[in-house]
Amino acid sequence: MSEIPVAVVGATGAVGREMISTLERRKFPVGPLRLMASERSAGTTIETAWGEVTIENLGEADPTGLEIALFSAGGARSTEHAPRFAEAGAVVVDNSSAWRMDPRVPLVVADVNDHAATEHEGIIANPNCTTMVLLMALGPLHGAAGLTDMVATSYQSVSGSGQQGIATLLDEVDHFGQDTEALRTGAWEEPPQGVYARPIGWNVLPLAGRAVSDGYTDEELKLVNETRKILDSPGIKVEPTCVRVPVMVSHGIAVSTWFERDLSVAEASELIAAAPGVELWTDKVPTPLDASGIDEVLAGRLRPTIGRPGGVSFWVVGDNLRKGAALNAVQIAELVAS
Amino acid sequence: MSEIPVAVVGATGAVGREMISTLERRKFPVGPLRLMASERSAGTTIETAWGEVTIENLGEADPTGLEIALFSAGGARSTEHAPRFAEAGAVVVDNSSAWRMDPRVPLVVADVNDHAATEHEGIIANPNCTTMVLLMALGPLHGAAGLTDMVATSYQSVSGSGQQGIATLLDEVDHFGQDTEALRTGAWEEPPQGVYARPIGWNVLPLAGRAVSDGYTDEELKLVNETRKILDSPGIKVEPTCVRVPVMVSHGIAVSTWFERDLSVAEASELIAAAPGVELWTDKVPTPLDASGIDEVLAGRLRPTIGRPGGVSFWVVGDNLRKGAALNAVQIAELVAS
Repeated sequence: MSEIPVAVVGATGAVGREMISTLERRKFPVGPLRLMASERSAGTTIETAWGEVTIENLGEADPTGLEIALFSAGGARSTEHAPRFAEAGAVVVDNSSAWRMDPRVPLVVADVNDHAATEHEGIIANPNCTTMVLLMALGPLHGAAGLTDMVATSYQSVSGSGQQGIATLLDEVDHFGQDTEALRTGAWEEPPQGVYARPIGWNVLPLAGRAVSDGYTDEELKLVNETRKILDSPGIKVEPTCVRVPVMVSHGIAVSTWFERDLSVAEASELIAAAPGVELWTDKVPTPLDASGIDEVLAGRLRPTIGRPGGVSFWVVGDNLRKGAALNAVQIAELVAS
Repeated sequence: MSEIPVAVVGATGAVGREMISTLERRKFPVGPLRLMASERSAGTTIETAWGEVTIENLGEADPTGLEIALFSAGGARSTEHAPRFAEAGAVVVDNSSAWRMDPRVPLVVADVNDHAATEHEGIIANPNCTTMVLLMALGPLHGAAGLTDMVATSYQSVSGSGQQGIATLLDEVDHFGQDTEALRTGAWEEPPQGVYARPIGWNVLPLAGRAVSDGYTDEELKLVNETRKILDSPGIKVEPTCVRVPVMVSHGIAVSTWFERDLSVAEASELIAAAPGVELWTDKVPTPLDASGIDEVLAGRLRPTIGRPGGVSFWVVGDNLRKGAALNAVQIAELVAS
């Protein structure tokens, strides 16, 4: 394959850094690599497998000649800049939520709905990290039995909020120290304000994202709407709850699912075990620590629903920076380039 | 009220210690207080509001004269010793799971099904901590509308595993230190074995309790069976998932609920706001840190179900050592003594 000019936009963020290393790890035929970020980072350099690259100011960068642009620079910058990159001939793979529900924009989970990637008009959207992890296990089940209903409850890591999320968790656990008696009695002191509205150190925040409608957060509505779009099934019923937990990397989802017909655990296990990009664990439960730093999403605890029989409850966990973001973006680039 | 001879059995554990302080805080008319534990702790003393008390060896302790015995010494000791305490005339309030599903034994959440406490034959069971917290908010909704279905997913703190749980979490976070790069890349080293099968530090264990049947854990089946018994409704359908999170104290539950009739968020909010022992938070989300060290269970994020309309999804969190264990046990003792 000849070399492909690629830009990583938002190159200094947690996902941008992961995009650069993913391009290298997967031997994507990059040439040249251009890195872009906000004015604040412009002019600094990053050491990459393709040599030292100076970061360009996104606002002034000329996209001419680019074939692929991996965007992870936030919704506002994607809204503003993705169209001009696409008009200049690049295929934009956008990690923000800005374009995901646009009917002209495919929303692609590689290995689940690859076919959709071919129908783009210059922009392809990378799904929400939680939805992506869940769909790696759910996609094969849907393909066989037709998902009708699910109740999905998340355990999302702080790296989903970028490097500030990680720093906040470390600072707050340090703030509380070893004084578990204060935590037990409620005599703890509020730590300095971090990236979240409330402390995440030794705590759980039962609201991830911004409250937007009827008490639901944007994260929760993404889980509903993106699942329907990716699986091309607008009638799927979803009850979502998105929760932040004091974990560094990887998002977990506990889910109960029902289909157009009864689905046994044996059949669901076979489907997930045979699917690419997802591992079925049966001897022990997969945890966020197990999923971090690997490409595969891990599924486990498959069991029959017991309240409303005929469905399957399970757990799935995946690296939100890899499959949940950078890896899938690079996989989409591979689909486009192939 | 005249003084009531009380024993705390399992006095050296996390829940036992909390039982002693709860008796004091609620001015239970204790007299005298006897403390019992395993042979290992026998002979040591504990400073209490009723003076220094020497711990008796449970295996040799004579229950004669006791009116109330609060047991939190594990299922095996409850199975062995609760009957002989009851036969000697004490009312045993047992925090283990040993007697909960026995048809002769009432299972009581104070402020939810107080009436059941009167029907005892010497033993009254204190429900599972997660079920207890959930039912404080769910009980009033059931009373008004009749619960039919729920999907409940827990976020359980390590103190649910006693003081060893807390020590394990502290040790493991200390083991991983500040090396978030290792956590990001998966290059972390397994910490020394703690109280759980896998690390809980910076991690989530999507299996709380022991796997017992069809892939479900004992914790999960408690959520099903105890809910049905407490609400006296064997037909309630429950999909349970119990998960351990790296939090010191307080268990949270994310739940979607449906009833015999449509229940609006407005009505559900009024019902919870009016119920004793539970606070409805509407201005911010209640977290485990907020619930720790207080008697009230906290509910929030009430919102209409959006997949299958007509129900209510919400979040509830409560101190597993207080309402989830010691407080409810003492409240049952108050019901018995009144």
